[in-house]
Amino acid sequence: MRSFRGRGSAVSTIIAITTDFGTRDGYVGAMKGRILSICNDVVLVDLSHEIAAQDISGAAWCIARAAPNFPRGTIHLVVVDPEVGSGRRGIVFRAGGQIFVGPDNGVFDRLLDRYQPEDVRAIRSTTPWWSTHSTFDGLALFAPVAAHLARGLAPSKIGTRTTIEPRLTQIPALRERDRIVGRIEIFDRFGNGITTIPSALIDPEMVARCRGACFPIADHYAAVEEGEPLALIDSDDRLELAVRNGSARAAFGLERGDEVDVEPADR
Amino acid sequence: MRSFRGRGSAVSTIIAITTDFGTRDGYVGAMKGRILSICNDVVLVDLSHEIAAQDISGAAWCIARAAPNFPRGTIHLVVVDPEVGSGRRGIVFRAGGQIFVGPDNGVFDRLLDRYQPEDVRAIRSTTPWWSTHSTFDGLALFAPVAAHLARGLAPSKIGTRTTIEPRLTQIPALRERDRIVGRIEIFDRFGNGITTIPSALIDPEMVARCRGACFPIADHYAAVEEGEPLALIDSDDRLELAVRNGSARAAFGLERGDEVDVEPADR
Amino acid sequence: MRSFRGRGSAVSTIIAITTDFGTRDGYVGAMKGRILSICNDVVLVDLSHEIAAQDISGAAWCIARAAPNFPRGTIHLVVVDPEVGSGRRGIVFRAGGQIFVGPDNGVFDRLLDRYQPEDVRAIRSTTPWWSTHSTFDGLALFAPVAAHLARGLAPSKIGTRTTIEPRLTQIPALRERDRIVGRIEIFDRFGNGITTIPSALIDPEMVARCRGACFPIADHYAAVEEGEPLALIDSDDRLELAVRNGSARAAFGLERGDEVDVEPADR
Repeated sequence: MRSFRGRGSAVSTIIAITTDFGTRDGYVGAMKGRILSICNDVVLVDLSHEIAAQDISGAAWCIARAAPNFPRGTIHLVVVDPEVGSGRRGIVFRAGGQIFVGPDNGVFDRLLDRYQPEDVRAIRSTTPWWSTHSTFDGLALFAPVAAHLARGLAPSKIGTRTTIEPRLTQIPALRERDRIVGRIEIFDRFGNGITTIPSALIDPEMVARCRGACFPIADHYAAVEEGEPLALIDSDDRLELAVRNGSARAAFGLERGDEVDVEPADR
Repeated sequence: MRSFRGRGSAVSTIIAITTDFGTRDGYVGAMKGRILSICNDVVLVDLSHEIAAQDISGAAWCIARAAPNFPRGTIHLVVVDPEVGSGRRGIVFRAGGQIFVGPDNGVFDRLLDRYQPEDVRAIRSTTPWWSTHSTFDGLALFAPVAAHLARGLAPSKIGTRTTIEPRLTQIPALRERDRIVGRIEIFDRFGNGITTIPSALIDPEMVARCRGACFPIADHYAAVEEGEPLALIDSDDRLELAVRNGSARAAFGLERGDEVDVEPADR
Repeated sequence: MRSFRGRGSAVSTIIAITTDFGTRDGYVGAMKGRILSICNDVVLVDLSHEIAAQDISGAAWCIARAAPNFPRGTIHLVVVDPEVGSGRRGIVFRAGGQIFVGPDNGVFDRLLDRYQPEDVRAIRSTTPWWSTHSTFDGLALFAPVAAHLARGLAPSKIGTRTTIEPRLTQIPALRERDRIVGRIEIFDRFGNGITTIPSALIDPEMVARCRGACFPIADHYAAVEEGEPLALIDSDDRLELAVRNGSARAAFGLERGDEVDVEPADR
């Protein structure tokens, strides 16, 4: 039996938690309490509890942005789980030296664009340590799984080996000669529209168009005047539609899935 | 003099914090700083700072859901305190092996449905360690009380023994032959309406009605189609009115206090 | 080479984080991960990630309220940074025995009303440990600076000595005989309007007026009836316009910058 994490380390294991529960109802508090009751020397880190309700795609982005920065051995507990109580599986896997626990519903899709999953396990529904619950597997199943992993529980005790497949459809951006066509995939808090267009396709002399508005490509937000639109390569290496000190989403009524066209600026 | 917590433990004391302050104004940050200045080896856990402003009932639910999952010796600091500066008392008590600190205004009512309070103390308004403040007892009084408890301050130094009584009125659900009448007590973030009707009164062959809408009883959210209403037994062992991947509150204009009728499904 | 923090302490360094990122996009999670990857024994404390987008003034208040309560040696990482990618400087300085890291854009103005900054450094844009980024210096620059400071990096490695000046204009309150004229500077979550009028100018027998409404001065919120306006001295030692168990902002349509007049009550 091999453990997921090294033993004998003096440093506490990190459990980073991501949910769509908000905090006010106490559901997240309950999960934290249960983890600390099982394993009292973990370090709990809140990634986010403000994922929009049932927004699997939003959770997938949050995890993909944050997780790669964490140290090896970190356990990521992700509970955005609209199908709780149905037949959807709970899974545990390793990727990039870290461990991921959550429902097999697409919340890990964006992460798995970048990392190959290893040692994927379908979580046994009932063990001495946890069980499934019809409405709240975050508390009954996933939190105890994460806590027992932090205590060094062997993967073979978690469940049988399996594989995971992407769940969320993603339409890649297309390049047709000097024109690129993509879509708005998601918005961040500032109302910036993150597109499906990777930085590798973009030249600085281009301009992006969406819903009739024109977003000249710039280096940074302050390169244009207050309230003016721009497009830039963001920290995800994607083309992003923005408005300086404003919200591109609100200013132009942008929506997820909107088509974005990028062309040479002189057209 | 007996201490509230055992001594000699190598594990840091947990202080779990619940407020209605939000975080943006820095009030919660101030409390955290003061605690860490008094006792630098506590583990701070955010339960919630998103309790709706002055929503004592919401805080009572948050604490009751979360606290029972925490390990023995945890200190719960609760500051939802609209009557700060008036004559309302600050209290400290033990329940279920944990310690609770906050205003005596009903924030602990739902917890005390389940636990018998022990060693209840009315907090002295002024000591060398803390004092009352007309607008912000969270910082001046309750945070230092929690921190000094974590350092092992004796209960006799906190204040005189007293008792606590429930502050929030709660109308129990009624069963009349095969019909049950209750009310919506609170909503969670997803717009699910938590009713006053306990699971023990419910048969699977029943249907719930509220504001003219019909909520068939089901096992889990995904048992009905997207956008359809259902009622289920939730993790609080209460009947809950829900809409799959939606908000029952928004879909049917439900409000706190609405009457909920549960009857055999074949009527 | 002198280190910013004392060595040999058994207590972990605290890094307190304040941003306007919200948590749902994963940007804050990424920063936390990077810090923990650089320095695994820090204690991360969330001050706030709910500063309104690009609200430098709101961040300045949050820091000024919270930071003074933290223990010596705490590192405050503040990322509200609308001019990221432009020529604005990143700075590190010491004040009140603590260390502050962030953009030089006014986020520290309210703190520096109270403390004299020491050992101010302009952060080198590129080192082996960090570099500037056109859209996300929180991750690329400021988080690693804070983490390396926690590891004991010498100030001379951070950048050259410099000075900081206030960036946000603040119009002081004026006293003309027995009349005081100030402005609403900011609102807190409860809709209380914090004015520019310091407690030292106020007598209990006065009344405040704003937008035609009258706010009698009182000791605490519960001194007036539910829904009634009042003015009181708050925990910032400023005159605050409030409504008991309500929002003064919403009730009277108050806005930042509104004039507030305080006069003897018998006029």
